[in-house]
Amino acid sequence: MLEKKHIQALEDFVGKENVYSDKAHMIAYSYDATRTRYEPDAVVFPRDEEDISRILVYCNHHKIVITPRGAGSGFTGGALPTNGGITLAMEKHMNKILEIDMENMVAVVQPGVINMDLQRAVEEVGLFYPPDPASEAYSTLGGNVSENAGGMRAAKYGITKDYVMALRAVRTNGDIIRAGKRTIKDVAGYNIAGILTASEGTLAVITEITLKLIPKPRFTKGYMGIFPSVDDAMNAVFKSLASGANPVAMEFMDSLVVQALKEKMGVELPADAGALLIGDVDGNVEEEVAFQLQTLEASFKENNAQSFIVAKDDKERDELWFARRNASPAITIFGRKKLNEDISVPRAKLPEALKAIYAIGEKYDFKVPCFGHAGDGNIHVNVMVESQTPQALERGHQAIEEIFQMVVDMGGTLSGEHGIGTAKAPFMHIAFNEMELALFREIKKAFDPNNILNPGKMGLLP
Amino acid sequence: MLEKKHIQALEDFVGKENVYSDKAHMIAYSYDATRTRYEPDAVVFPRDEEDISRILVYCNHHKIVITPRGAGSGFTGGALPTNGGITLAMEKHMNKILEIDMENMVAVVQPGVINMDLQRAVEEVGLFYPPDPASEAYSTLGGNVSENAGGMRAAKYGITKDYVMALRAVRTNGDIIRAGKRTIKDVAGYNIAGILTASEGTLAVITEITLKLIPKPRFTKGYMGIFPSVDDAMNAVFKSLASGANPVAMEFMDSLVVQALKEKMGVELPADAGALLIGDVDGNVEEEVAFQLQTLEASFKENNAQSFIVAKDDKERDELWFARRNASPAITIFGRKKLNEDISVPRAKLPEALKAIYAIGEKYDFKVPCFGHAGDGNIHVNVMVESQTPQALERGHQAIEEIFQMVVDMGGTLSGEHGIGTAKAPFMHIAFNEMELALFREIKKAFDPNNILNPGKMGLLP
Repeated sequence: MLEKKHIQALEDFVGKENVYSDKAHMIAYSYDATRTRYEPDAVVFPRDEEDISRILVYCNHHKIVITPRGAGSGFTGGALPTNGGITLAMEKHMNKILEIDMENMVAVVQPGVINMDLQRAVEEVGLFYPPDPASEAYSTLGGNVSENAGGMRAAKYGITKDYVMALRAVRTNGDIIRAGKRTIKDVAGYNIAGILTASEGTLAVITEITLKLIPKPRFTKGYMGIFPSVDDAMNAVFKSLASGANPVAMEFMDSLVVQALKEKMGVELPADAGALLIGDVDGNVEEEVAFQLQTLEASFKENNAQSFIVAKDDKERDELWFARRNASPAITIFGRKKLNEDISVPRAKLPEALKAIYAIGEKYDFKVPCFGHAGDGNIHVNVMVESQTPQALERGHQAIEEIFQMVVDMGGTLSGEHGIGTAKAPFMHIAFNEMELALFREIKKAFDPNNILNPGKMGLLP
Repeated sequence: MLEKKHIQALEDFVGKENVYSDKAHMIAYSYDATRTRYEPDAVVFPRDEEDISRILVYCNHHKIVITPRGAGSGFTGGALPTNGGITLAMEKHMNKILEIDMENMVAVVQPGVINMDLQRAVEEVGLFYPPDPASEAYSTLGGNVSENAGGMRAAKYGITKDYVMALRAVRTNGDIIRAGKRTIKDVAGYNIAGILTASEGTLAVITEITLKLIPKPRFTKGYMGIFPSVDDAMNAVFKSLASGANPVAMEFMDSLVVQALKEKMGVELPADAGALLIGDVDGNVEEEVAFQLQTLEASFKENNAQSFIVAKDDKERDELWFARRNASPAITIFGRKKLNEDISVPRAKLPEALKAIYAIGEKYDFKVPCFGHAGDGNIHVNVMVESQTPQALERGHQAIEEIFQMVVDMGGTLSGEHGIGTAKAPFMHIAFNEMELALFREIKKAFDPNNILNPGKMGLLP
């Protein structure tokens, strides 16, 4: 519980109307997409960077912990106030697109801007912001930067960090830091914007984001490859890319997902379909789109694809994507609760990784439907915990731990795009040795000596 | 001077044949491309990562400073042992391409590998490593990563940091750190590879580099636009890019460079040519190349280009590029000594920036021929200090300081690709305030508490 005098001080900083501490609001702000609950002691809506600086100075002095929050849509608990304290919510005031600079192809936004709102605004003027996490309709760009969000289009266009040109951020001592420039090249000083990206709100509070934009591609087409087996599809992923294909997206659905799509969503697919690859290709000229489709088709067929379908128009493209968009709801036919992980491996390891995942599933007696962003090696692994008994959950966690160990042994990572937060913190020791964890802690300490910013996340410090 | 017992210890670690401390070698290793001289007390050639770890532990204990060195081709003094101590030279043993992984499109190299050697090796198997600093024929990838080297192809393909997937590095306490993965997406832990890139050897010693490769583009064509004035050319740069062109390179030469090319190199250009833009476009299909050329031509002509020339074949392309490649030797007609800076501004600021640079040149009575990577906003500004008198040099430095102030005021940076080192250290206060410099120092301290790694660089600590 926060002492009354602290609430008073916060109200003095930002105005009474921008501080909540009543029970109802504390419950409302206790969730994120992990569905675990931690109530903050207060929720504060800063109006600007100066508010944030003042709040940090005060909280740093009084050792009050702070959790920055965008939309609370993260899958790993980054926005959960696990140690209570203050939730610093960006949604109310820090939510403006400050500038779309068409001449330099750059957007400047506050952290509370919703990803899709930026996408729409820049597309209206012929520009393109590629990172498109599945949460794009509600997640904020501050959250996207803090977690280094990925998405469908990462196969061709990369992830959030590839678009962060500059950040403004406030340190726990109140210092306002400008990191990076609105220039393509900048090698003056350490890459602070680079280390703040993906730092899960543990190092500083981001107050302004400068994002690179690119020209909007003129032509896009959707495709679907149907494969007899997961192994064939996984071979087609890395072999088609190594043969020169550069699709915008290459999304994978395994046999269980195919079954679920048929049964629950009525998707019509051949009886012997064992796996799907769905995606888009794009280009400035139609011939480039055709080249991409030919390259994919040739490689898919070499890897035993039963068919390769190209959408004739946007309507057909939407129909192809229906399967991918409904993969997550479809697999509820296998159980009410899933442990959803987002491992990533070097692409050529995908066939081996998927085999190992299914073997671990069998060993622990769980169905493990998998789908996701195969084009960049990032797979969403869903361990279906059929009942919610503590025993089943415990076995589920053992299966997950075994999957993580296998992924790391293959040169992969615990998280392709969801981050570590609290959900994956127990597994950090699998991916990093003591020397590496020590370095993380020293960096955390250099930025935030009192450990008031989002403590307990990433498995670094309690 | 290093005590004899220290030399002995180093010899014990790496073998007598891998330690130099004689005067002749100290002179040989006292230079880099800045042409200033600082002799080390010893040059050590580590055989492997374990050697480096042992050397760092020893030097850290005895507070002996260490300067890592690739080819010594840097323009800002990053490899100069300004405080004496040990130069850790990667050229002799740590110079192997360890792996070219065609399936994952990744190369793993030691830091002493020469950039061009990697480019050649990957192109032989149909892959492409885009970063091409002008020093590509002799600079090392360890140096490229440490300085975050750019190059001609950055306009389309980005810079070194965009290709660094993972690093191995040794901390001053001997800890060996693995940072990053051979995966497109990885959001587990802080982005250590990101902060080591461009850190100029001040945080850790890089021992292994994993680089992203891409498929080699199938078609490339060269182009040249001839403009009546610098202003027209600079407008054409940002307007053509904002209109959707995505050239591989867009290199700029101003009126003085044009004059020098004609007079010294015999390049044939129209009498009224005031500025050139030279570059390449590429694509997977010829229609994409044609689209790029059409987009450039339309935009160049809208911005008063007198002519737009497309090279019919590789021979003609080489002829176009002859002008760009000889810009640097040509401008020696304006004097024996130049102060060569590599400012970078948001591209739409280029017209204004160039005008301001020439005005500053006039004020201090220097010719300032400019050329460089206009497509990414990075311009090489050459203040021609006609005599080497201390007065002329002092005036030259004043002109440079004024240029930097103007660049920073426009949202630009002190260095697009050369780094800070010692050469630009006096100007760091223009680009960063005390709070930002303090953060840099705290990060330096977190990695290297005894300040033994390349001290004195980047204007951080003496």
